Amino acid sequence: MGEFDLIERYFKRPAHKAVLGVGDDCALLMPSPGMQLAVSSDMLVEGRHFVSTVDPARLGHKALAVNLSDLAACGAEPMAFTLALSLPRVDETWLAGFSSGLLRLADAHGCELVGGDTTQGPLNICITVMGEVPPGDALLRHNAQVGDDIYISGTVGDARLALEVFRGTQSLDAAGLEQARLRMEQPTPRVALGLALRAVANAAIDISDGLLGDLGHILKRSGVGAQIDTHWLQTASSFGNGQAAGITPLLAALPWNKRLEFALAGGDDYELCFTAPVNQREMVHAAAWESDTPVTRIGRITEAHGLVLLDPQGQPITRRFASFDHFA
Amino acid sequence: MGEFDLIERYFKRPAHKAVLGVGDDCALLMPSPGMQLAVSSDMLVEGRHFVSTVDPARLGHKALAVNLSDLAACGAEPMAFTLALSLPRVDETWLAGFSSGLLRLADAHGCELVGGDTTQGPLNICITVMGEVPPGDALLRHNAQVGDDIYISGTVGDARLALEVFRGTQSLDAAGLEQARLRMEQPTPRVALGLALRAVANAAIDISDGLLGDLGHILKRSGVGAQIDTHWLQTASSFGNGQAAGITPLLAALPWNKRLEFALAGGDDYELCFTAPVNQREMVHAAAWESDTPVTRIGRITEAHGLVLLDPQGQPITRRFASFDHFA
Repeated sequence: MGEFDLIERYFKRPAHKAVLGVGDDCALLMPSPGMQLAVSSDMLVEGRHFVSTVDPARLGHKALAVNLSDLAACGAEPMAFTLALSLPRVDETWLAGFSSGLLRLADAHGCELVGGDTTQGPLNICITVMGEVPPGDALLRHNAQVGDDIYISGTVGDARLALEVFRGTQSLDAAGLEQARLRMEQPTPRVALGLALRAVANAAIDISDGLLGDLGHILKRSGVGAQIDTHWLQTASSFGNGQAAGITPLLAALPWNKRLEFALAGGDDYELCFTAPVNQREMVHAAAWESDTPVTRIGRITEAHGLVLLDPQGQPITRRFASFDHFA
Repeated sequence: MGEFDLIERYFKRPAHKAVLGVGDDCALLMPSPGMQLAVSSDMLVEGRHFVSTVDPARLGHKALAVNLSDLAACGAEPMAFTLALSLPRVDETWLAGFSSGLLRLADAHGCELVGGDTTQGPLNICITVMGEVPPGDALLRHNAQVGDDIYISGTVGDARLALEVFRGTQSLDAAGLEQARLRMEQPTPRVALGLALRAVANAAIDISDGLLGDLGHILKRSGVGAQIDTHWLQTASSFGNGQAAGITPLLAALPWNKRLEFALAGGDDYELCFTAPVNQREMVHAAAWESDTPVTRIGRITEAHGLVLLDPQGQPITRRFASFDHFA
């Protein structure tokens, strides 16, 4: 199968939103009048972001999910994406699985595949996603205010737990591993929450390199500091809708130090970390309900720079947590 | 140097056109009212699209040029781009060269780097470019009309000639090699010509895989055929502005068969191939002058399907030419 047949068979579908989809030199989109365009690119490399044995449908899901997560963190509504794919060879089973996982998530978010590129080379997946947001409504990193509450969506740490099982430093039973592995391989982009937080949150980021490290970007950009509590790490709790909030029972079963490390600096969570004024607590709760997404309050923005982590007794924890850096 | 320092040092500059540039979860752009958004992604892989020894500044230029060439083929005006980069290691000399070549071309076209991603892995460069075009003005592949003239911009075949010198099948003196190599390593995206052809041409494509193969996409999409002349391959000619048109003297020095092969199926030319009604010849000439870009008329669109190549005496040439396919 050649390059053009491959695109035709696995990635070309009739354009709905786009004026012109896959198959010309460019795709053509008609932006909604008055809206800003939000754009983000992510590149996934075998051995770095995923293992070669990953289920291709899950990989297809994840490749788009990490991009949708960036739109979510800006409060943007997904519109379209391009896919550039470098493949060592044409493996039709792999392509069928990959495209099904990718397009299923795309359909769930009304985000249309409009173009891209395929080439031969080491496995590499690069997606650029485009979304829309009304001018002034985008959630940005630089707008955290002193006194803001700090929140996270969903749960953190399970993706890292799964990774450590694969590395052999942790063990889980089959059901536990499958649950953690799903969090690593098939993260849920918090698009609906991001949209619901548009007029509510002051600053937001998606947690990809580890909670504290990513929160650090908000602090640096906003010229503020933060106090982070750890009482929410003491037990697994559940949100009103029954979903786990903060950490799952899997993580709560770990020793305290591992729990801190995986939840606060685990990486690959693709949850949102955001700040909102104290007088918006009701609205944050409403946004969580509206988007059916658990939200946990984990701390507050301070005038004093730096990030202070408090143990459940309110005493500072001095241990340092490394954030993931691709070149560190 | 870590990932964030790397971005800060080599790729982050103040945003001019963009509402928000490099450094948040998404970039934010404000599309011009009423304009369509043209989007294209290209991925360049070491060993496939370039050799490891290529001058990094030229590679930076080429990585963006091949994307701008897609915008040119649609008649779109460049606006912004994202860059995703997988690097085996942080090599500051390489990064300085790469970013200088990339950003020099970006500046020349007012195309702003607004975001992207960096990761460790086999060298891979993925750029997604965005441009604007008035609704209905985009040059598309499916709109060639029976009777249209067929044109190419600039010259074709020199990039392939350079490649064959590196492969050892051809030889050139140092000056000739440098000239051909520049065409391979630093192609000129024909953006100004694309803009000037908006109301003039019926269909267009950029020549990346070889002239006949890429023209074939126009024919297939438009449901038409073509006759291609070869008299323009007999000698090097020059356009009114003194630039070579059709083929360069380097190519004209080759035996006839090699000349045909390199010019018609060479690949990596990044020239435009376009069709326009016969009554638009004056306008095509004016567009060429306005954009300071040589243009050569090479044939005509026919009702009979298929592509017929005529020798300088008007007799059909039966030889087949392979187009480049990444998985063939």
